[in-house]
Amino acid sequence: MLDRKRVVIVGAGFGGMSAAKKLAGKDVDVILIDKRNHHLFQPLLYQVATADLSPAEIAWPIRSMFSKSPNVSVFMGEVTGIDLPNQRVLSGKHVLEYDYLVLATGAVTSYFGNDDWASVAPGLKNITEATNIRKSLLMAFERAENSQDEDQKRRLLNFIVVGGGPTGVEMAGAIAELAKKTLSDDFRRIDPRDARIILAEGGPRLLAAFPEDLSDYTQKSLESIGVEVRVGQAVTEISAQGAKIGDEFIPSANVIWGAGVQVPDLQDWTQKPADRGGRIKVEGDLSVPGHSHVFVIGDAAHVTWRDGLTVPGIAPAAKQQGKYVGQRILDLMNGRQTSPFKYSHAGNLATIGRHRAVMDLNGIKLRGWLAWWFWGLAHIYFLIGLRAPALVMVQWMWSYLFRKKGARLITGQDRENATAVVPPPQQDT
Amino acid sequence: MLDRKRVVIVGAGFGGMSAAKKLAGKDVDVILIDKRNHHLFQPLLYQVATADLSPAEIAWPIRSMFSKSPNVSVFMGEVTGIDLPNQRVLSGKHVLEYDYLVLATGAVTSYFGNDDWASVAPGLKNITEATNIRKSLLMAFERAENSQDEDQKRRLLNFIVVGGGPTGVEMAGAIAELAKKTLSDDFRRIDPRDARIILAEGGPRLLAAFPEDLSDYTQKSLESIGVEVRVGQAVTEISAQGAKIGDEFIPSANVIWGAGVQVPDLQDWTQKPADRGGRIKVEGDLSVPGHSHVFVIGDAAHVTWRDGLTVPGIAPAAKQQGKYVGQRILDLMNGRQTSPFKYSHAGNLATIGRHRAVMDLNGIKLRGWLAWWFWGLAHIYFLIGLRAPALVMVQWMWSYLFRKKGARLITGQDRENATAVVPPPQQDT
Repeated sequence: MLDRKRVVIVGAGFGGMSAAKKLAGKDVDVILIDKRNHHLFQPLLYQVATADLSPAEIAWPIRSMFSKSPNVSVFMGEVTGIDLPNQRVLSGKHVLEYDYLVLATGAVTSYFGNDDWASVAPGLKNITEATNIRKSLLMAFERAENSQDEDQKRRLLNFIVVGGGPTGVEMAGAIAELAKKTLSDDFRRIDPRDARIILAEGGPRLLAAFPEDLSDYTQKSLESIGVEVRVGQAVTEISAQGAKIGDEFIPSANVIWGAGVQVPDLQDWTQKPADRGGRIKVEGDLSVPGHSHVFVIGDAAHVTWRDGLTVPGIAPAAKQQGKYVGQRILDLMNGRQTSPFKYSHAGNLATIGRHRAVMDLNGIKLRGWLAWWFWGLAHIYFLIGLRAPALVMVQWMWSYLFRKKGARLITGQDRENATAVVPPPQQDT
Repeated sequence: MLDRKRVVIVGAGFGGMSAAKKLAGKDVDVILIDKRNHHLFQPLLYQVATADLSPAEIAWPIRSMFSKSPNVSVFMGEVTGIDLPNQRVLSGKHVLEYDYLVLATGAVTSYFGNDDWASVAPGLKNITEATNIRKSLLMAFERAENSQDEDQKRRLLNFIVVGGGPTGVEMAGAIAELAKKTLSDDFRRIDPRDARIILAEGGPRLLAAFPEDLSDYTQKSLESIGVEVRVGQAVTEISAQGAKIGDEFIPSANVIWGAGVQVPDLQDWTQKPADRGGRIKVEGDLSVPGHSHVFVIGDAAHVTWRDGLTVPGIAPAAKQQGKYVGQRILDLMNGRQTSPFKYSHAGNLATIGRHRAVMDLNGIKLRGWLAWWFWGLAHIYFLIGLRAPALVMVQWMWSYLFRKKGARLITGQDRENATAVVPPPQQDT
């Protein structure tokens, strides 16, 4: 029993979970390490940030997903280093020995060297960031309602989203729906519909990974629901006062960063070649050069694909890699051959507000409400096996039909206080 | 238009909401002030603390409940004082003038003079406290799993609930269900069923407001699901190390306080007679003595009832008072008489774990699973008119049937770290 091989998996995102599932019930000990206790369905995280969903609707306790797999144990802790020669993972003073190691540590928000932007332009990578953004969006309206200063009001009601990829497009669309629809009747001294939502993209078009006509459609759709789209205009300055987009400084208390990611730590830990984003350049079997028992998968891996591209950092890619590496480890243990990893690209999908989406499934293009429903069903399909897809569906339907955002909670302490004398509320009589 | 009377309501709990609803659509301006943006369905708060429900399932944006009532405006801010002679409410530098004032400020946790216990034995009065307790309960199991020190493990798996009222009974039952059922398969180095859950009550029996046979039943039911009930044993010491119950010091990292409440600020603000709990002694029409246009309702009010008792601090009482005061203000404005407030007591209800409850409806006593279903339906009934009772019901059914706790999330930063070498996981082969 004690000489069973041990696989340590670092990270319980899509890649790590998928590797662990492949090894569950097999004749091997698996330790799955994550600094959080939950697996996150990241593609819907923006809906937590915009108060459409509650955190628990897109996150599940990792342990509960392996309740029935006694060979998988979950270790909640932060990895602080790896000792490749001695085959050990370090987590503070904890030491975990491994026979096989899977590094599925994912990516974090990157500010392209402007690290001081982090405090004023939060990214959207985990539940805490999402609920902080939610709080800050909702508080902006509350502060504007209480404010007597027109400049301050303006600044509070300007929302800037940086980055025209799927995250930026989805955030901007959802903020527009929040301001122009959900909140429209709830205030008495401001009109939430006056909010400006600005989406800034330095490149020539939104959704660069999509065909050009879908980018055009996305821009027009966003504009029709009230988003100002600025393409070809780089953001060169961000502060608590606002952001400079192209040549114009726009005052704003709400800048959200969706522009870039990078992989932390791995190059340090492994001392192996990485690309500019910190992704480790892996072998055909996703192993680290020189260490056939150590693998890097998901957003953390630089995997060559086709036409000089690398495999994109999306959930389906990470899942395929996790499954592959699980099988690869079983093959290694049993002295079997494994073909190199081959990525199968299903396509790209992004939503625009509450009724429209764009998709490109290897040449099959779809847009509008039909794509939105396809997007919804695809996500519900992926949620199956996790938990309660029916619940999320009921929640969406409710939200869709009644525009009530139940998750519109502001909790914790407030940081800023406006000061003024409150006039009598305006009456629409 | 500008000489319409203005009613300021402080607090959007059951009392304040009920007063505001009574005045919605009437020929009067209403300003509803709360330091939070949401109304909380407090009777279910313990289920957030024990990961059965998400915050958004029991809390609703105050604004959205008055979207269609243009004469009601919501002011999010903390009241810092009241100027009775000049009829003004102060919130920082904001000043709100009133013609009628309703103080529905509620109660906060009281440690009976032991204020240093607050940091180690949190109470359960708002969403932030509930999610902090949830985090700390879940982290206790995580830390025990990672710990190599038997004493520390023991301390982490001892849960002490102070106070044998409905809050304490419900918390203790829910923690027992969490440890003995929900988490039972999820750990590999500890058995969550080894957790001790201790409920301490200084008085002679649990649920003092209920008939004695229901108290007995409650104690036996709690014991049958693994709670150690200690009645007649006062808690005389609480620290980060544990609590002294009667003569015994029990090491524990998880002490939860459900023993008492008090009303803050009101006596200071009004300079009027209050009882020991800080509740203002009001007139027959719930007005403050000497100020016929200023009312105190809900947990903050000392209202005489029958047999020398005061009206209890429960949701139905606050709602009745809010509605009464709304009507009283309309009557005052129109020069009409109003009969004194008369409390109608529907009864007492408390749940014990996941399958049993006790209720006493003015002499009609019920206990066991039938009472549990009655309790569930009664709460769903009260949730109607707020939001999505169907959602909460689906959530409960799901949880009831599958024992999956979806809200088992640990978010934010962790404060404490255990340190040890991790042994290979135990196998149940």
